[in-house]
Amino acid sequence: MSALDVAGEFETIRRLLAPLAHPEWGRGLVDDVAVLPARPGYDLVLTKDAIVEGVHFLPADPLDTVARKLLRVNLSDLASKGAEPFGYLLACCWSERCGWPERMSFVDGLRADQKAYGVWLLGGDTVVTPGPASFSLTALGWSPKGRTVSRAGAQPGDPVFVTGSIGDGWLGLQALQDRISLDPERLGALADHFRTPVPPVGFAPVVRDLATAALDVSDGLIADLGHLAAASGVGIEIDLERVPLSAAGAAWFEGRVDPQAALEQLVTGGDDYEIAFTVAARDEAALRREAERRHVRVTRLGRAVAGAGVTARFAGKAVSFVRTGFTHG
Amino acid sequence: MSALDVAGEFETIRRLLAPLAHPEWGRGLVDDVAVLPARPGYDLVLTKDAIVEGVHFLPADPLDTVARKLLRVNLSDLASKGAEPFGYLLACCWSERCGWPERMSFVDGLRADQKAYGVWLLGGDTVVTPGPASFSLTALGWSPKGRTVSRAGAQPGDPVFVTGSIGDGWLGLQALQDRISLDPERLGALADHFRTPVPPVGFAPVVRDLATAALDVSDGLIADLGHLAAASGVGIEIDLERVPLSAAGAAWFEGRVDPQAALEQLVTGGDDYEIAFTVAARDEAALRREAERRHVRVTRLGRAVAGAGVTARFAGKAVSFVRTGFTHG
Repeated sequence: MSALDVAGEFETIRRLLAPLAHPEWGRGLVDDVAVLPARPGYDLVLTKDAIVEGVHFLPADPLDTVARKLLRVNLSDLASKGAEPFGYLLACCWSERCGWPERMSFVDGLRADQKAYGVWLLGGDTVVTPGPASFSLTALGWSPKGRTVSRAGAQPGDPVFVTGSIGDGWLGLQALQDRISLDPERLGALADHFRTPVPPVGFAPVVRDLATAALDVSDGLIADLGHLAAASGVGIEIDLERVPLSAAGAAWFEGRVDPQAALEQLVTGGDDYEIAFTVAARDEAALRREAERRHVRVTRLGRAVAGAGVTARFAGKAVSFVRTGFTHG
Repeated sequence: MSALDVAGEFETIRRLLAPLAHPEWGRGLVDDVAVLPARPGYDLVLTKDAIVEGVHFLPADPLDTVARKLLRVNLSDLASKGAEPFGYLLACCWSERCGWPERMSFVDGLRADQKAYGVWLLGGDTVVTPGPASFSLTALGWSPKGRTVSRAGAQPGDPVFVTGSIGDGWLGLQALQDRISLDPERLGALADHFRTPVPPVGFAPVVRDLATAALDVSDGLIADLGHLAAASGVGIEIDLERVPLSAAGAAWFEGRVDPQAALEQLVTGGDDYEIAFTVAARDEAALRREAERRHVRVTRLGRAVAGAGVTARFAGKAVSFVRTGFTHG
């Protein structure tokens, strides 16, 4: 009907995407389907996210980082359930600005991350849209049978943890929109986090072995803890002062006149791609040991309690949020 | 950044999509991932297609038919490989015209087809785009281990068949754009085929047992036979006079002054979602028997030969095509 594909569907698949395909399961991307042998003793874990130009990434974002972010936000979901990724299917809706060089850049990003995360392209589709570019990805991982962690399972008394640091995704978006001022190196680190977050994929086995409930922080820490609390049928209490910041995040935070308001922005901004989780109190020491061994920062934010919802305290007082996170539609 | 979701991501998932979820594997669509137990003795077959408003469907198409078409074009891929579908993941990029009533309509279409085809929603994503609506779907099916049919495998001498009739998808698009005239009932049947094609999903076991190579006809019969020929390392010869037409297609065809040109349009138009395949010559009788038993029309178009490419004949003379099919980007 419309949307001429100047770069060509078949050439895009043959020259750019086929070299990324799993040598056996992807069937060279020329056979309509991927074929995956059963892995007895393991469950297949699947997740699918979509991103849209102007909504989830900026029109100015280089397409190699867009591809990496797309892959990583899905790997983040798998990691937060304790699953280990091995492959993905991809649908590209190229906009008119996506000519051959842009598609090459997109594929460069995928190639780099395939190597970094040990995953293969299995199949998908490539089409052209007259609107903004959008991409969707279905990521696949394995979990030992019956061992996939869920959002439900937190018990009153369980300590609540988060990996890494919170706020850099939101700060990175502000940096890219020239809404905050910091020294250029800090701004660059934050922009990098927004464009290519680093989900703690290597932490998946610890989540699987020790977490009573877990999810990735994508909508915003408060919103996502709320999801976990609701699914588990518990309340969650955290102290905002404990929220872990990166070096760049801390540099920004130090310049704030209203520290509470600043923390509120960081815990509702989203785009963190860290893992929020609970463990049984008796497993806290084991958790800290495993995290240290894997060089993953974990921070205890608070605990699960009988009740419902998330209560965040600052200076001992409960804070109420107008919005708890970001919703994309 | 932009694209406000008036209908709401969480409400859309909770109220509209969660009721479609597989009772166990979909985790109620509230847990970031789907979890699928291994099925020993079976391979998992996956395919993923995307559709964009104004490219693959018309802005005026009702969203229930858009949803059904999206599901069916993916089921068509699975059926053409002999796989039997059981589930799917879905990413919706709603446009601004997709308010609550439009989303309900979309889900109504999915619900009807879930029942018709025995599949369940397993997971996905819902976002909003400032551009035209687009949707992508990852369909999952099972094949007995090692039995998934491919495009490769046709041998010289194998008869070439197609299920159903060819051309109704292209004619339906012409009908919806007021480019052909026929009596209203015929036009309606053609428009229905364009909006909700009926892939021969029940024919999958026959494909699995008897086809030496197969694929679904989506780009156009000539183009798709070309893909099969290339993957198999054979040539394919067909007679255009044998191309099967529906009653509505035949009614249109009868009014043409240039029958060869008319057939050329039908075999290059695409959007058929039938299965083109080869069988060993010794299996032709078994194929016809199985097709009859399942009430699936099959038509022998020609045969595979030593060589390359597709040779189509009309009145005994080879026809050359300027374009062999439709490419979407």
